[in-house]
Amino acid sequence: MYKLILLRHGESTWNLENRFTGWTDIDLTEKGVQEAITAGEKLKEANITPQFTFTSYQKRAIKTLNLVLETMDLMWLPVEKTWRLNEKHYGALQGLNKKETAKKYGDQQVLIWRRSYNTQPPALDPSDPRHPINDPRYHNLPEPEAHPATESLEDAINRSLPFFKNEIMPKLHDYKIVLVAAHGNSLRGIVKHLKNISNEDIVGLNIPTGIPYVFEFDENMQLQKDYYLADPETLEKLMAQVANQGKQ
Amino acid sequence: MYKLILLRHGESTWNLENRFTGWTDIDLTEKGVQEAITAGEKLKEANITPQFTFTSYQKRAIKTLNLVLETMDLMWLPVEKTWRLNEKHYGALQGLNKKETAKKYGDQQVLIWRRSYNTQPPALDPSDPRHPINDPRYHNLPEPEAHPATESLEDAINRSLPFFKNEIMPKLHDYKIVLVAAHGNSLRGIVKHLKNISNEDIVGLNIPTGIPYVFEFDENMQLQKDYYLADPETLEKLMAQVANQGKQ
Repeated sequence: MYKLILLRHGESTWNLENRFTGWTDIDLTEKGVQEAITAGEKLKEANITPQFTFTSYQKRAIKTLNLVLETMDLMWLPVEKTWRLNEKHYGALQGLNKKETAKKYGDQQVLIWRRSYNTQPPALDPSDPRHPINDPRYHNLPEPEAHPATESLEDAINRSLPFFKNEIMPKLHDYKIVLVAAHGNSLRGIVKHLKNISNEDIVGLNIPTGIPYVFEFDENMQLQKDYYLADPETLEKLMAQVANQGKQ
Repeated sequence: MYKLILLRHGESTWNLENRFTGWTDIDLTEKGVQEAITAGEKLKEANITPQFTFTSYQKRAIKTLNLVLETMDLMWLPVEKTWRLNEKHYGALQGLNKKETAKKYGDQQVLIWRRSYNTQPPALDPSDPRHPINDPRYHNLPEPEAHPATESLEDAINRSLPFFKNEIMPKLHDYKIVLVAAHGNSLRGIVKHLKNISNEDIVGLNIPTGIPYVFEFDENMQLQKDYYLADPETLEKLMAQVANQGKQ
């Protein structure tokens, strides 16, 4: 039996300030730190011990992973970091308040940017300090794909999925239990692939933060089942949230 | 110009309790945490930005590295962990108070265990829960070398030095600035090799905790100079300590 655990990082300071984050490297809030520790406790209770881990180039996911590993007393585990698991790039919207952006561009336009599968937010100019070519962490990475000026959900999935197929799945085969700490949209790509979700439906799928999402595979690497590690009460609340978000 | 930075982790709870630690996975104290943060600040001030990092399988070194990376806003850097950079294994002495051990075995014997190049402390029995074969983190690692029941300084150097030559030096060549966060004795092996220090002298070399120790190499990977990143006052105190330790 193989187990893949997906974990979406918890609250960051820009979640709290309601700003578009994308590739901006924003830290966790104290609540986000607590969510990560709780995720580690849930995995320990469920007796699921990862043997290999992946995360993005962004500290809110890296710190989430570090806190899980510290909570589980597994700091010695290998950690592989990749830009391909980064959050979707939000282009020129990064740093803007979501409400103010809605006032400026209209609710409808913001909804499209947030919920369309293949519409990109306005692009960053290469001279903009927020553009990845101006951030040393993205130097020496493949051009132009590691230096997006903006990304649709489709773009983000197109660069995260090859990594999932070529790096994460082979590691799952070798290590049996693998943990991926990442972001709403890079994890959406993985879930879309594993559960065969359509382009239309994936934009409505909201992975809750800080709840380990477990995928079990048989010996032929066929998906058997998937479930969240949360008590029934929390789960019911999460499911109601997801359903409500789907309705709007 | 190539720069290799060695960093010895700061105070752990067993340092404080004066117990033999070895491969026991003991956490940093609050002072040890502060030492790591200060090390990160020193590197930032000196404008030395690592591009690749190594550490051991032990949380006091891993956490030191994580804190340095967080302080420098470099959490995205690759981190490679290896048992070969672990502290020297202290065999059956692990967990014992150093003073009590001296009472039991005599000062002279304890001095030999602590300061001889090739004397091993008493070995752990394979049935002892402290033995590495009983710790999952050392499963799937090369037998028998990754499962020592005890180690002399020579043994510890014999398993850390091949890693330094085969893994760390090539990475230094590719990445130009490499940080190694590890332990007194695994770092001694590296310094012994780089500075051609004799078996007799290496036991008297004490690398201070929490002070980045920089080795600069020319384009042919020849060592040019080595220095600690510390203000003159701190450095003078450290040098006095080292000299005094040498005298005893």
